[in-house]
Amino acid sequence: MKAKVHITLKNGVLDPQGKAVEHALHGLGFPEVAGVRQGKYIEVDLPKQKDKAQAKADVEKMCKSLLANTVIENFSVEVVD
Amino acid sequence: MKAKVHITLKNGVLDPQGKAVEHALHGLGFPEVAGVRQGKYIEVDLPKQKDKAQAKADVEKMCKSLLANTVIENFSVEVVD
Repeated sequence: MKAKVHITLKNGVLDPQGKAVEHALHGLGFPEVAGVRQGKYIEVDLPKQKDKAQAKADVEKMCKSLLANTVIENFSVEVVD
Repeated sequence: MKAKVHITLKNGVLDPQGKAVEHALHGLGFPEVAGVRQGKYIEVDLPKQKDKAQAKADVEKMCKSLLANTVIENFSVEVVD
């Protein structure tokens, strides 16, 4: 099983990295870009885990304890075979 | 329109950040984790673009010129309304 984790900043949290990318894109000739938000994408490999629901619960626990800062970030977990 | 961009390291490219996360997860009581790869997830807001195919082409151009390092990274673009 493999888990795909998306970690994004919550709405209202400043994203200076995204702002920098947005400005750079404007400078490169993409004035139509109205906003950029940068997050993290993490793939976790769980080859021995056969239970999809259990895998999801485990990875959500990993997110809460390490991968995401839940004060300012949201996360979503998707488990695929 | 909003574009969701995933940027991941190509296979075979070392991912020290992912390795560090993997070791940390082992230490936190998740020994079943066999691998972690960390990538980037970027949301690009294009409110004036109404043409989905054109939006996708534009964002792919952005990836090639700024967002991704195509020597070591793959990217995928998904456009949603």
